[in-house]
Amino acid sequence: MLRRSAPTVIFSIFLGVVPAFLISHARATERPMHASAKVANTAATDDGPSYTPDGRLKFPAKYREWVFLTSGFDMSYNPAATAATNSVFDNVFVNPSAYRVFMKTGRWPDKTVLVLENRGGEGDRSINTRGKTQTMNVTGMEVHVKDTSRNKGGWAFYGFDDAVSAKRIERPASCYTCHQAHGAVDTTFVQFYPTLMPIATQKGTLSPEFLKSTAGPPAQ
Amino acid sequence: MLRRSAPTVIFSIFLGVVPAFLISHARATERPMHASAKVANTAATDDGPSYTPDGRLKFPAKYREWVFLTSGFDMSYNPAATAATNSVFDNVFVNPSAYRVFMKTGRWPDKTVLVLENRGGEGDRSINTRGKTQTMNVTGMEVHVKDTSRNKGGWAFYGFDDAVSAKRIERPASCYTCHQAHGAVDTTFVQFYPTLMPIATQKGTLSPEFLKSTAGPPAQ
Repeated sequence: MLRRSAPTVIFSIFLGVVPAFLISHARATERPMHASAKVANTAATDDGPSYTPDGRLKFPAKYREWVFLTSGFDMSYNPAATAATNSVFDNVFVNPSAYRVFMKTGRWPDKTVLVLENRGGEGDRSINTRGKTQTMNVTGMEVHVKDTSRNKGGWAFYGFDDAVSAKRIERPASCYTCHQAHGAVDTTFVQFYPTLMPIATQKGTLSPEFLKSTAGPPAQ
Repeated sequence: MLRRSAPTVIFSIFLGVVPAFLISHARATERPMHASAKVANTAATDDGPSYTPDGRLKFPAKYREWVFLTSGFDMSYNPAATAATNSVFDNVFVNPSAYRVFMKTGRWPDKTVLVLENRGGEGDRSINTRGKTQTMNVTGMEVHVKDTSRNKGGWAFYGFDDAVSAKRIERPASCYTCHQAHGAVDTTFVQFYPTLMPIATQKGTLSPEFLKSTAGPPAQ
């Protein structure tokens, strides 16, 4: 019944919001990504968070080369939500250095960066006649960063309105309380990441709150 | 109208097929992946296809660390298909060395490896109350390889029944004819890969057949 008491909707802060800059977002970010792809690949430990002098998180321009964790479709944490008018995909990526630590330990190291990218879902594109494919325009971007030197509790959320930088979302905010109450590992939604959930289960890093709410990991 | 004349369903060869080995597929492949993650990251040019002595394609064990291209939901190329009983996600990954060439040229180099991974979609997991999240079990795996030294036309398809190796699907087969007729770039479905489509458009590498069928790239 725990799931019924969760009115907070972290993903929803982007639903229905389509900042103009994001319409051509893929183009803006992919080209610079490419130019330094070789560097990124040979120096993956440089993939942590980076900040402006006034403490804003810089846009993680290379995130589409990071490790993909999952894609959800039309998700909502609000049981009262009605069917979506426009379909939404939630793509989640993590910086490679943090991924490698998680695969070894079942825990997120300091400087973990999780990126949630929203894209629309469209039917009837090309020869696809059913279901949905992902649109070229990005409709929202949220980043969850573990940086113990900066954030109370280690983690902070940032909502990007452009591909430059974002201000930290300050506590208290529903994203923090919801992730704290329901995140399977260290306030993150590992329960939705199919390749990480077996690792966390095996390493015994699922949170007591999560285990209590599910009476064990979800069925395969 | 071209889309209505495409009865071949490349993705469907996996629909409804759940090989037993794949139930714990994530566990089987993630752990060996981790052990050599550092090597994979610093030697990305070693990410091409590898074969057994009798010509079977070896399972690309590190594909979940490769570059994610898209995830489709409940796709079908068959206009007569009815609604799916069980939801399916189609996750597509490409080897990083091929991705980097594509971002620069809009073309796939020799030794490109595209992996299609199918996972089920399930509702009502944890606090998600609407839409679908991806299951831990992999329900199908198909690989599309460009290897001009081995394959007529450069490309070959392989359908994996286990996480070891797969036999080439020989021509003629519907996957080849459908990809030839409808693939936006070099017999691949770049029209469904939102970060690659702008590159192909910009570089002028969309196939004449594709341009004729759409009268230009899809709307944003």
